[in-house]
This record gives sequence, structure tokens and C-alpha cells, in this order.
Amino acid sequence: MSLTIGVDVGGTKVAAGVVDEQGKIVEKLKRNTPAASPGQTVQVISDVVTELTGQYQADAIGIGAAGFVDETRSTVRFAPNLAWRDEPLKEQVERRIGRPVVVENDANAAAWAEAKLGAAAGHTDVVLITVGTGIGAGFVLDGQLYRGRWGMAGEPGHYRVVPDGRLCGCGNRGCWEQYASGSALVAEAREFARRSPGGAIRLLQLGGGSAEQIDGPVVTEAAREGDAGALRCFDIVGRWLGAGLADLAAILDPGCFVIGGGVSEAGDLLLEPAKAAFDQCLTGRAYRQQAVIKLAELGADAGLIGAADLARHR
Amino acid sequence: MSLTIGVDVGGTKVAAGVVDEQGKIVEKLKRNTPAASPGQTVQVISDVVTELTGQYQADAIGIGAAGFVDETRSTVRFAPNLAWRDEPLKEQVERRIGRPVVVENDANAAAWAEAKLGAAAGHTDVVLITVGTGIGAGFVLDGQLYRGRWGMAGEPGHYRVVPDGRLCGCGNRGCWEQYASGSALVAEAREFARRSPGGAIRLLQLGGGSAEQIDGPVVTEAAREGDAGALRCFDIVGRWLGAGLADLAAILDPGCFVIGGGVSEAGDLLLEPAKAAFDQCLTGRAYRQQAVIKLAELGADAGLIGAADLARHR
Repeated sequence: MSLTIGVDVGGTKVAAGVVDEQGKIVEKLKRNTPAASPGQTVQVISDVVTELTGQYQADAIGIGAAGFVDETRSTVRFAPNLAWRDEPLKEQVERRIGRPVVVENDANAAAWAEAKLGAAAGHTDVVLITVGTGIGAGFVLDGQLYRGRWGMAGEPGHYRVVPDGRLCGCGNRGCWEQYASGSALVAEAREFARRSPGGAIRLLQLGGGSAEQIDGPVVTEAAREGDAGALRCFDIVGRWLGAGLADLAAILDPGCFVIGGGVSEAGDLLLEPAKAAFDQCLTGRAYRQQAVIKLAELGADAGLIGAADLARHR
Repeated sequence: MSLTIGVDVGGTKVAAGVVDEQGKIVEKLKRNTPAASPGQTVQVISDVVTELTGQYQADAIGIGAAGFVDETRSTVRFAPNLAWRDEPLKEQVERRIGRPVVVENDANAAAWAEAKLGAAAGHTDVVLITVGTGIGAGFVLDGQLYRGRWGMAGEPGHYRVVPDGRLCGCGNRGCWEQYASGSALVAEAREFARRSPGGAIRLLQLGGGSAEQIDGPVVTEAAREGDAGALRCFDIVGRWLGAGLADLAAILDPGCFVIGGGVSEAGDLLLEPAKAAFDQCLTGRAYRQQAVIKLAELGADAGLIGAADLARHR
């Protein structure tokens, strides 16, 4: 049984695991990310990999990083939550550990994992959408990870769904992630609580009495209890999600959409309105077959597992 | 020099040509399309191919058809302007002519031609957008034609750019082609002429005095003369086009966009506002390289040339 190591580098944690050919994690370690220091982050990655290679025979290392990775899968061009700017990550880690390294965007790595070993196993054309603070994505097309000309493909969170719409962190207005993300869900609930404290009484109770303290888990908990205001928030955000999936289907015609990320833990609260909107918005729906829309199966480990598998198939 | 035959089947004309390896058309024939009769259309295609194979040694035939082609590249599922419904075109033509046939969506065939032999030669990731009555598209990704799970990929004309926007022929509202096509250009000019006949005096003169008679060539002619109203129409439609290209870049990150179709004959009148809007709308523009946006080079023959080349590389 051949083993590889996957590393998931986020803004707060570095997670590294030894993974087998079926995607099973044999051992996993976690460290804090010294996000402000590019050099220290490289060192933490190298240290945790060295610790694992001391115990296990691993052939290669895959790193999934929360940032834009260049088309040679070597350099992190820019990472919004890390200090990396044109960081030659592959070279730096290879020099320290003496084994081959593949660097990939974390959402791409997660898409690969879900397409090959997770919810979309058996599908050749897969779109992973991670619904968290923002929207991340990765595409497996014709059985291969699609990265685009410069490694920047798979950012549908920043396609425009409303002209002159809500301001986005990217500097544009009307980006999809301002309507269909966890941030949108929370913004919707807080706005509702401010405008209609009576209707939002359960949301406010769970949020400790203040609209500003309502967060994603609060909205999910209230919705699970059947609270109408919380359910309405999921309905609004889920419908934006489904309408966007219909747009992506018009463009990419995948066989399977996989929905991951923190908000996807709400399950059908998010998926039911998304599926309803998808059915309603899909162009040519009378003349085509429809993609399945499924929840992700590999959870927070998807990036790590995908990075390890990409290292195996490098 | 190996030759293949390409056939472009539209709602009014069947064009067939003998094409060499460089994409040069050695001989070309045209017939009217008996669009109301599926069987007669197949017969016309077979007849024109037989006429060409009687004169030239051709190895294979590629057919580009204005419709949805299934994932096996055999059957036309549905063609808006032809009577075909689940027409097994490949089998029917092969039976009549005794040579291998490949069937492809006409915009996909055109994208292949422009990517391999036309404006985007040398690029591996290409998006062709044809701006005509509607918007057609074809994608070459990682050097291969991307067709999607069921052959329905490449319909960005029907992704939604305005929620509850203009009604589209597909039954949805707010589709891109209602804002960035030749129909949108003409609608804009006619509306302007109705609301402001004084401002639209040149458009009305060229249109024979009636707003309803203003068509695409009229708007282009007036814009070429420098007419402010006509230029404004191109500016509006070109900006919608460029904003859509920015959305597609967020999703697909191509190295090259090729703009074809009838409206693209207006050249910079369309491309300049499109490029300006693209620059303005592209997410992460400070941290990425930008796709080039070019006019198509193969004109109305792109579908025929692409079909012939796809037959060669079947």
C-alpha cells in the first residue's frame, strides 16, 4: 500500500496527514499557522511533514494552500489570509524535506478528493462549491483537474449575479459569494433581527440578545428547531446558491455538483431551496439531463486528502 | 496532403467543404436546408458530401449542427431552428455515404477551428463567443474541446446576468444574450429611435424612416459614421459583453477569448467597450494575468473548418 502526505494550509491551521490510496487518513497532525511570516509557515509545513516521514514511508507530498497557485503548481502568487506573495513554496519545501512536492489551491485539492474518492466518485465532470465565509470552488472536467491558463480558474464566487449589487471583498459589486455564502446567511439573519426583533425572537435568544452576535451555527440551530425567520434565511441563500449552480450548468454542464464548506453542514436546510431554484433556473431543462447536487462527504479533510492524492498522481 | 470534409448545418443553409490540414478550404458547396423535414435534411447533407467525395479523396466527415449534440457525438437531441428531435445523425449519414462521421455542435466546431487554426492558434485554453442574434459559445480547455457531461456545455448565453431581467427565448429571464447580442444591439437602437427620434435621426434615415426597420448593419453603419446614438448602442452592448467575459474569466481563466458572429464584424466598435468593461470587472485583476480578447479570423467558415478538423482528429 503506497502512502503519500497531504498538507492543508489555511489562515489559522496547518493540517498534515498520511493518506492511503483509498483516501483513508492513517495519521494526522495539526499546527498553528504563523500566517504573518512566510518563512515560518514554510518551516512549520516542513517540520510537520518531516515528523510524518520519520514514521511512515511516503513517496510524495501534496500541499493544498488557501491562495492562488500558479500554472506550474509551484508558486503561491497571492494568499488573502497568509503573508505569501509569489512564494516559491514547492522549491522551498522540497529543499527542506528532499521529496517531491505538488502545490495546489485548497479548493482544487478538495474538488479532486470529492471527485475521485468522495461524493462524486464515478463522475467525470464535477463542480465542487464550498459554501463558507465566501464561496470556493474546484472543477474536475473530463476526469482532470481544470486549472485554467494561469491556475486561476474556479472562482465563481466572484462572478456577478447582481449588477451594482452588494460590495465584495474583491472590490467588485454583486459577486455570487455576497448572496450565497455563510456571510450572506448571517447578514440576512442579522438584518432580519434588526428590522423585526419580534419575528427574530428565537434568533436573538440563541444569539445572546444581540443581532450582532447571531452567527452561522445560531441560524442553523434556529432553522432546525423550525423557526420561520431562520428558515427564510436559508431559503433566500439556498435559492441564490441554486440559481448560481444553474448558471454554472449552462456554462459547464457537469454531471455532479458537490456542496461543501461549513454552511453545507446544515444539509437539506441549504440543499432543498438550492435544488428547487436549480430546477427552476436551468436553461433548456426540458431538453437535457440534470446534474445531481450532493453534499460533500470528506468534510474538512477534503483538501488534505486531495493534496495527497494529487501528489500520488503528480 | 490528407483531406476531410466539413459540413455546417444551419437553419437556412447547408455548407459543405473539402478542407486540408491547415484549415484551407479546397472546395465548397452550398444548399438550402429543408429545415422542416429531418429526413430531407439528412439527404441533402449526404448528397452534398457524396458530390464532394466523388471529386476528392476525403477520409472522414465532420458535421457541425446548430443544436444540442449528445455526449457520444452521434445524435442531435434538439435543434431550435431545425425539425431534429433525437435525430441519430451520425448513423444516418454514415449509412448513406459509407465513411466515418463525427457530429458536433456548430459553435463547438467553430471554437475548435479558431483555437487550432484561427485567432487563438497556440493557446491551450480558449473561449469562443459568437455574438449574433443570440450568443453562442465553445470552449477549448487544456487543448481539448470541452463538451460537458451530456454535451451541453458552452451555453453562457443563458447564464443570468440580471435577476428578473429581460425575457429570453429559453423561457428564463435575464440571460446574457438578452444584453450582449445582436438582438440586444438592435433593440437598444430601436428603443432609442422610438423615445428620441431627434437624437436617432441618422439611425432612422438609414433604417428607412422607421424604428422597426433599424437592423444590425444599420447600427454598425451609423456608428462607423460616428453617430453618437449608434455608438452609445455599441457601448452598452459591448460593456455587457465585456462584463460577461470577466465572469467567464473568473470561472474558466482562459488565455484567449475569441469574439465571432455577425456583430463581431463591427470590430473595435464592439471590442473596445468590451475590453474596457472586462478590465474593470475582472476579479483579482491586480494579482493575475489577463486573457487576450481577439476577433475571430475564420468568419462564417469556422464551423465548417472546425468540423472537418474534428473529423481528422476523431
